[in-house]
Amino acid sequence: MVECLKCRKKFRADHLLQERAKISESEAEKLRLKELTKAIEKYDIHCPECGGTFGEPKHFLTMFKTTIGPHSGAIGYGRPEAAQGIFVEFKRLYEMAREKLPFGVMQVGHALRNEISPRQGLIRLREFTIIDLEFFFDPDEPNCFLLEDLENETLRLLLAENKLKSSEDITEVLVKEALENGYIKAEWQAVFMALAKKLLIELGVPAERQRFIEKLPWERAHYSLQSFDQEVYLERWGWVEVSGHAYRTDYDLRSHMKSSGVDMSIFKEYEKPVEKDQVFIKPVMAKLGPTFKGEGTKVAEMILKANPEEVADSLKKRGHFVIGKYKLLPEHITIDHKKVVERGKHFIPHVIEPSFGSDRLVQVALEYAYRTKGERALLSFPQDIAPIQAGVYPLVSKDGLPEKASEVYKMMLDEGFVVEYDEAGSIGRRYARADEVGVPLGITVDYETLSEKTVTIRDRDSWKQVRTRIGDLPALLRNYFRGKTSFEDLGKPFER
Amino acid sequence: MVECLKCRKKFRADHLLQERAKISESEAEKLRLKELTKAIEKYDIHCPECGGTFGEPKHFLTMFKTTIGPHSGAIGYGRPEAAQGIFVEFKRLYEMAREKLPFGVMQVGHALRNEISPRQGLIRLREFTIIDLEFFFDPDEPNCFLLEDLENETLRLLLAENKLKSSEDITEVLVKEALENGYIKAEWQAVFMALAKKLLIELGVPAERQRFIEKLPWERAHYSLQSFDQEVYLERWGWVEVSGHAYRTDYDLRSHMKSSGVDMSIFKEYEKPVEKDQVFIKPVMAKLGPTFKGEGTKVAEMILKANPEEVADSLKKRGHFVIGKYKLLPEHITIDHKKVVERGKHFIPHVIEPSFGSDRLVQVALEYAYRTKGERALLSFPQDIAPIQAGVYPLVSKDGLPEKASEVYKMMLDEGFVVEYDEAGSIGRRYARADEVGVPLGITVDYETLSEKTVTIRDRDSWKQVRTRIGDLPALLRNYFRGKTSFEDLGKPFER
Repeated sequence: MVECLKCRKKFRADHLLQERAKISESEAEKLRLKELTKAIEKYDIHCPECGGTFGEPKHFLTMFKTTIGPHSGAIGYGRPEAAQGIFVEFKRLYEMAREKLPFGVMQVGHALRNEISPRQGLIRLREFTIIDLEFFFDPDEPNCFLLEDLENETLRLLLAENKLKSSEDITEVLVKEALENGYIKAEWQAVFMALAKKLLIELGVPAERQRFIEKLPWERAHYSLQSFDQEVYLERWGWVEVSGHAYRTDYDLRSHMKSSGVDMSIFKEYEKPVEKDQVFIKPVMAKLGPTFKGEGTKVAEMILKANPEEVADSLKKRGHFVIGKYKLLPEHITIDHKKVVERGKHFIPHVIEPSFGSDRLVQVALEYAYRTKGERALLSFPQDIAPIQAGVYPLVSKDGLPEKASEVYKMMLDEGFVVEYDEAGSIGRRYARADEVGVPLGITVDYETLSEKTVTIRDRDSWKQVRTRIGDLPALLRNYFRGKTSFEDLGKPFER
Repeated sequence: MVECLKCRKKFRADHLLQERAKISESEAEKLRLKELTKAIEKYDIHCPECGGTFGEPKHFLTMFKTTIGPHSGAIGYGRPEAAQGIFVEFKRLYEMAREKLPFGVMQVGHALRNEISPRQGLIRLREFTIIDLEFFFDPDEPNCFLLEDLENETLRLLLAENKLKSSEDITEVLVKEALENGYIKAEWQAVFMALAKKLLIELGVPAERQRFIEKLPWERAHYSLQSFDQEVYLERWGWVEVSGHAYRTDYDLRSHMKSSGVDMSIFKEYEKPVEKDQVFIKPVMAKLGPTFKGEGTKVAEMILKANPEEVADSLKKRGHFVIGKYKLLPEHITIDHKKVVERGKHFIPHVIEPSFGSDRLVQVALEYAYRTKGERALLSFPQDIAPIQAGVYPLVSKDGLPEKASEVYKMMLDEGFVVEYDEAGSIGRRYARADEVGVPLGITVDYETLSEKTVTIRDRDSWKQVRTRIGDLPALLRNYFRGKTSFEDLGKPFER
């Protein structure tokens, strides 16, 4: 946090650097106090409100503090993420997953961060909705069964090694290459990144307007082995983070175990029990006594605490084993080899965490949907995310057309579509209204509807129209909204 | 809040009275400090933790307090309801409703109340999800266009007049009777209560396990002209509030106007402009001067500020009008009658607010769905609220049945159903697992499927089975989940 020495307004120094010096969100976030001071000087950053000079940056806690319950000492914080709730409940969730790995749990919920100056529409809010997915897997079986479906997806990476050279060069690779070359360390992480890329494409953001920024070791959170931020380019605000992809290892579960004393490890049975050769050693008291006199018992205890394999190995290779200040010979120790059967292993699962800001996804979808056509503003939402699927309109508000249109409207509602009925104003005005709020299709009841039982369907983006039978609407539109067919498949071309 | 004098634990006195003395939630909430003291004495209520005696009840603020932004003086509270956000945005929402009344806005969101001791599962939480619906209408046009669809619904009311007589008598009336008899003051309120009753029936609560409690004048919030709490009977906790129905009048919008200075009133054009007779008065200076001497001008000003209708009326009836200490005669004032055309009126809409606790609805649905059948626990969710609609199972995990079942599973997913695939364990065990989590239908692929392209469908509640063609599944199940058909309509009876 920096405070303007003139007007006393407070700002987040990292955000000012993002906005004024075009430093990326992930880099700006990790600057230390001294680096911030330098950067503010270097880029000559002044108070955006009054132009004043800033004082020294200070640390500021971005969690909301409150007291919970009637005891004023019970301090609590608004949660800044959903993740920890999943880790705390891990054992129960593991049971629900029928005690099988891998599995993932996604939580969508309210999160609170005390931003110093919230702004940029839905991008930087104090109250927002987070989508945290914690995906648990056995680090000994890191293979991802979805990889073959996604290995040929392209990812645009800004790798840490390039960032270190102050380069913004994008490494464009297939998922499988990113894994082969070691750019991405875990298969599940690569797969979730590919899925995140596809999700953003489905929300309307072309692949070339997306990138994944690898975090430098000192930029990463303490729990993460490797982290990428997915960024999307917005015309108004440049590159904006929409998701984070962290390989959290077993850090969280291990930390909860440590603090709570509750065992979070799981037992995994091997498919077949494993027979292992195990070495056992035993001190030979009858020999230790004569050699070490009064210290024989002490040496015997030291032998029992030693690593049996090391002892056996040393005796075999070097003919002796040194323990403390004592030199042991083969005669002092008996060595036994036994077969031991292991049924399984205890371990703490590893975690890959993709985490999305749902408000940012909405903002991104809105910005990419927005366009103008002549004087008209359109929201060209992809058809499967449009909040309203179709409008139903009588061509004119008389001669029984409204009644017939109401019938069609109710039928569509009943078939499970999200539709709106509108009869206010001219048909052109109603189409314009629907275009502006992003309704993909307009179903119009006209005079021919009464005799032929057909309606026209109008496309929001091309303004083309087709004519089709009312009875066919549910099946046709179901396929259309599932992305199986295109507008042209909905009927015969029609012009009014 | 009361504190145990022995163990120092703190409790909400009203909740203790609900639990120990079976005083209803709405009544207990409104007791004053003195009444609480008396009630605690009367019902001999002691600390539930240690049996100790309670000290005097005190007021306790049930909102979470924090500071917002970097200024420690900027105090904020976690919102305890969603309603005010709707009122603050009223003007914009009114525009979105195309400046037409009536319209309603529903907000589902996070709410925070600093409960002293949260308990009873999802019933009393510190963080919960509220559903507030603010419905705006013109108080001069209070008629509800949905009334004719709902006027014959029965409502079970515990009226304030009965509560005053300490009676728990339920008045069972049709919606139209409740309105005719003046039990419910606004049509929209009665209609929303009927809809709330129907909603709870759809969630599995029979009408006779529901009731609406009218709040006594001193129990109501200051903003409410009439309030009802919808209560549902739960075996474990007795009558529990699930929704509140308040006639908030124009209280909120008027208060926001007052505090913010922003005009929240709306202008409504009459269908036809209204011609009104309006009275204008004018002082006759030539007569006022001689009568009142030096005070003539002052009297003239007083006349201009007077209510023209009152002045004209008094002069007509009594032959004079007294203003301050001055007696005016007809000669002092000219009276004009003019026709004035009014295009519309300015007014503040009235509001009916139905408000639901969504966590409580979940708890209620779970409790009413839970039953046992022999040794088995079932969640008999109504088919349209079951989180998973159908399970898809291969009868056995060999001979190509899993592959065929996967095909059916993917087809069902693709058709938009929420289905789960399960091949672990015997078919009986899989059915049992599905019954326990409330999956209404089980689709089983068996050997006949391979040759006949048919599957069996099993009903969670009756355990009956029918056999049907795979190709017919989407259409059949769509109708079934929409409540249009019953299980028997899904195919031919079948027994394994």
